[in-house]
Amino acid sequence: MAFFRLALLVSVFSGGVLSHKTTRAENIDYNAAPPNISALPDGTLFSTWRPKAHVLPPSGHVGDPTGHYVDPQTGLFHVGYLYTIFGNDTIPGGAASATTADFVTYKDIASPDPRFIKPGGINDPIAVFDGTVIAEGYQGKPTFLYTAVSFLPITWTKPYIPGSEAQAIAVSEDGGRNFTKLERGPVIASAPFGLNVTGWRDPFSFQDAEFDQLLGSKNDTWYIVVSGGEHDVGPAQFLYRQYDSDLLQWEYLGRLWRESANTTWGDGTWAGRWGFNFEVSNIFRIGSQGAQADGTLFSLVGTEGGKYSVQGGRAQLWAAGDLNPPTNETASFNVSMAGILDWGAAAYAAAGKLVPASSKASQSSGAPDRFVVWHWLTGTFYDSVSFPVKAQGWDSSLLTPRELYVETISNVVDSAAVRETGSWKITTDSSTSGTVNIETLGIRPVREAIAAYKNQAANTFIEPDRTLNGTNSTSVSFTQALPDTKHYVLSASLSFPAEARNSSSLRAGFRILTSEHESTTIYYQFSNESIVVDRSNSTAVAATTNGIDTRNEAGKFRLWNILDASTGSANMESLDLQIIVDNSIVEIFANNRFALSTWVLPWYNASKGISFYYEGDGVKVSYRNITVHEGLVNAWPDRI
Amino acid sequence: MAFFRLALLVSVFSGGVLSHKTTRAENIDYNAAPPNISALPDGTLFSTWRPKAHVLPPSGHVGDPTGHYVDPQTGLFHVGYLYTIFGNDTIPGGAASATTADFVTYKDIASPDPRFIKPGGINDPIAVFDGTVIAEGYQGKPTFLYTAVSFLPITWTKPYIPGSEAQAIAVSEDGGRNFTKLERGPVIASAPFGLNVTGWRDPFSFQDAEFDQLLGSKNDTWYIVVSGGEHDVGPAQFLYRQYDSDLLQWEYLGRLWRESANTTWGDGTWAGRWGFNFEVSNIFRIGSQGAQADGTLFSLVGTEGGKYSVQGGRAQLWAAGDLNPPTNETASFNVSMAGILDWGAAAYAAAGKLVPASSKASQSSGAPDRFVVWHWLTGTFYDSVSFPVKAQGWDSSLLTPRELYVETISNVVDSAAVRETGSWKITTDSSTSGTVNIETLGIRPVREAIAAYKNQAANTFIEPDRTLNGTNSTSVSFTQALPDTKHYVLSASLSFPAEARNSSSLRAGFRILTSEHESTTIYYQFSNESIVVDRSNSTAVAATTNGIDTRNEAGKFRLWNILDASTGSANMESLDLQIIVDNSIVEIFANNRFALSTWVLPWYNASKGISFYYEGDGVKVSYRNITVHEGLVNAWPDRI
Repeated sequence: MAFFRLALLVSVFSGGVLSHKTTRAENIDYNAAPPNISALPDGTLFSTWRPKAHVLPPSGHVGDPTGHYVDPQTGLFHVGYLYTIFGNDTIPGGAASATTADFVTYKDIASPDPRFIKPGGINDPIAVFDGTVIAEGYQGKPTFLYTAVSFLPITWTKPYIPGSEAQAIAVSEDGGRNFTKLERGPVIASAPFGLNVTGWRDPFSFQDAEFDQLLGSKNDTWYIVVSGGEHDVGPAQFLYRQYDSDLLQWEYLGRLWRESANTTWGDGTWAGRWGFNFEVSNIFRIGSQGAQADGTLFSLVGTEGGKYSVQGGRAQLWAAGDLNPPTNETASFNVSMAGILDWGAAAYAAAGKLVPASSKASQSSGAPDRFVVWHWLTGTFYDSVSFPVKAQGWDSSLLTPRELYVETISNVVDSAAVRETGSWKITTDSSTSGTVNIETLGIRPVREAIAAYKNQAANTFIEPDRTLNGTNSTSVSFTQALPDTKHYVLSASLSFPAEARNSSSLRAGFRILTSEHESTTIYYQFSNESIVVDRSNSTAVAATTNGIDTRNEAGKFRLWNILDASTGSANMESLDLQIIVDNSIVEIFANNRFALSTWVLPWYNASKGISFYYEGDGVKVSYRNITVHEGLVNAWPDRI
Repeated sequence: MAFFRLALLVSVFSGGVLSHKTTRAENIDYNAAPPNISALPDGTLFSTWRPKAHVLPPSGHVGDPTGHYVDPQTGLFHVGYLYTIFGNDTIPGGAASATTADFVTYKDIASPDPRFIKPGGINDPIAVFDGTVIAEGYQGKPTFLYTAVSFLPITWTKPYIPGSEAQAIAVSEDGGRNFTKLERGPVIASAPFGLNVTGWRDPFSFQDAEFDQLLGSKNDTWYIVVSGGEHDVGPAQFLYRQYDSDLLQWEYLGRLWRESANTTWGDGTWAGRWGFNFEVSNIFRIGSQGAQADGTLFSLVGTEGGKYSVQGGRAQLWAAGDLNPPTNETASFNVSMAGILDWGAAAYAAAGKLVPASSKASQSSGAPDRFVVWHWLTGTFYDSVSFPVKAQGWDSSLLTPRELYVETISNVVDSAAVRETGSWKITTDSSTSGTVNIETLGIRPVREAIAAYKNQAANTFIEPDRTLNGTNSTSVSFTQALPDTKHYVLSASLSFPAEARNSSSLRAGFRILTSEHESTTIYYQFSNESIVVDRSNSTAVAATTNGIDTRNEAGKFRLWNILDASTGSANMESLDLQIIVDNSIVEIFANNRFALSTWVLPWYNASKGISFYYEGDGVKVSYRNITVHEGLVNAWPDRI
């Protein structure tokens, strides 16, 4: 993941150094209409939309999550991210990190500059891109294998500059505070010979017994996939195998996964386009509880060029598949289902890591081995909008980490809808009952965070159940007092009758961050089986300032009819929503298999209201188990 | 060729900038014993030992010859060389060049700084090493493919730092004045995967119809050999093939030539050891007249580690061989004879180039297509002696360019000596006459230079023929007036009777650069069939100053018995010497198949004498055709 990051790096931030949390908010009146905020002094808006429970640096720009690992000595999880200091560094980029013992609170690895690696060396004179940490790598030490950048531009839309990207190595001898580049060239110096690549970056390391067996490798061999593609051919993952115990040589095996340029999974309904270039690939196995060595093989990929437009279109996909034995090049990944990991247009660059049960967080929470994934939520839409980052003093964030696992839905009534090429697959097909069991990717916010947000909530509101069936647009305020803040988790379960499927106008959900001036509407509609976030009225700032993105967000989501074996009747499953609101970040989870995250930037202090939202033709919608856990948790207790 | 060059670069020259020909020679008395010259101010000795007819930069250090080509537009030959300015450049290295229309006089490509490429770019932050020019390469323009250096140390005696060397590209759009690096990574980014190389540098480009045929390439495909070797295995040439018309991609085919570490050709008598690492490989075909597309395949290699000691031993070898079809890796070069291209211990890094008959020099001289080769003569013995380079203001030189061709010696009387594994091979074996014809590498100074030195001589002395047979050491002065200068060509032919072969003490030759204080003796001795240069009394400076190399030089040379078919009698061929003396450079050629070059550093003005030298047991030696063409030609008329 690359080009927009660099454009940002070299063009936007040429101003003075900002101290952390610089804020000059005294003159700002959040009870009146906003000014053109792009004209405000640097840092004026530092706190305005600052999330409290999320991972982002003390100030400046956060890019892709990268370089995570669990330190076997301490059990701490190190969450890493690309970082650009706002200021006058000649080469301000690099990667930074923080540690956590619980996925709730974090400590910067160093202060005030939490970078563990900076660009500007022989191999990476221009930039450090995403990498992967092997906790016990070179000489048994934490080892960062990363993309070292020497030339620009790097984008699939232009001819590739050979040598612009290489995979380099750095090693930590101080518990992850610094990863020091070895005095040598890259461990993989150039893209495979003869391929006119669209990109070749973001190495991801993994071990896998089936790979070992199919490829004739020793047990516990390390592999790397590098993401990219071929011009006029399509995106691909390039597979490499460890050649020496110190991880200094990597044997190129061939392309593990290839798709034709700009094609789709099925008809493209359930997963984004494969695009023209892969980025930030992950490879892992999961089962019903989480990470599982003999589980289903999954890959995550960021795809470029397919989603919105040729220039900016990116999508964060997942795919499950089978590993086929080597034929032409090497073992190949054959997709059996694919979907979107987070439907938010600004959510991208997912980077996951195996978190063993032995990790500190898991020992406390009792979690089994997990694959935990972090997203980047760009605050400038990949640098394509002129969001006033200098006035804010920071931009972008990581999202709440998520656990991935295999979600099984049993007793789904068989139908043409079930038989679509979708983001699920049928595992058990019962002709006698007329039902099937299906599997899909399970996605849920990391358990420790949700538990903390609930258990440590400053206020917990329980809103009484309610049924809506108005024939006109309806926005019914909660009966409970408004939350005092814009930090909470809203949970609710919505039930629909069978006839809802035929309604062309039914929309049901919530309005959040509401006031007389602003509101954001989150709803489900059956007409196109989508969860939508209507941001058109979400912020008064859009009227005064360019670069405030208020486009709708939407994600495909299907509610299944489930046969109740005891009654013999089929009912539509409920829509189980869990919405994390953290000042400006809104993350919507549904039924453990849907995620959509976006920015919402209300201006007014008063914009804290929550209401039911219903629109349609009289079909009844029942809201149950409506709770608001307010407060979240300050993720950075040590930051001043 | 590498390590000593860099040691020099980073350690020796930290002083101030020297203007060209800076000289403060007023206080130096060359009629009295020398002081410790290493204590003299910078540049004091600039003219003392400066050659006039050789190629070397205006001042500073010259390294390997490299990057030669004939410009198809102008017909001019561009002679290139690695160059280190003495001064305070942060990165003072690079490569420079001069043009010539006649191999006699030269023009710097630019003044005062004749470099056509400098290090310090993304690919070559540390240094530019040897390269190869394809005159019509990238987009039809002169293209320099060279070794770009990123890390040190680089030496076969230490573990190789992967990525320290890469093969990069630069292109000239201004007639060779500048070669501009393309904004991209190296064209070959790293040594072949999985090989623990000892070195991987000095690309040499060539076209060859037999390679095309054996390797299934298109006609006129470009190939590159990169020189190096494998730790614990041996030296090797790595073969690459052009993959695109712009020479941006090179396909690795395998090792063209492999030898086991530190082995020899035959018993090692006639060629230096293969050593541990190859450098500066050349590949070309020659016939009896010069370059010939269907001629015999030859390679030149600089070998490291075999000649003197593990630390400093280098040898400049040639080998002829056959090309075998691909088996394991690629086509392979099988040696049929090998020898030393120049026996001088300081002569190394030979870099040749095809000079077509259409070139300007050849059109004037009427020469056919030729392969012309340049040597480097290190002035600091590969930086291993502390020669006072700063006091001199320059060091090292290129040698007189030489034409290579296949030399045939006919009617050689068959014998055990002929059947040795030597630097020759039997081509015609006549059992009836008891003779054989043999072939070897023909080596002679480039014809234009020799013609100019003779035709433009300021003085020509003809010394009468003389026969010596003293039983004690004899040094007989020439009857002709001493040359006025230390710049001349001395030619002579020495004939020996058959019994000379059995003499254990016979030595016959010349003393040059003689005075009452100094002399250098060049002689042939049958006891070990060697041409020897005794430098033990060559310079008075050796007594006052460290770093003055006065070790003997020696080269193996065999005089054959030739059957005169008309008389039926066999006579030993004469020893035909041609000695170029250019102030401090002495180049000895014998019988068009032997070369030995060395430094001789006489101090006294008076040390200009020439005498016959004879030592032995009374065997008669006849000296004939003794001529001295004095003056040589100033190679640099445009230099101030």
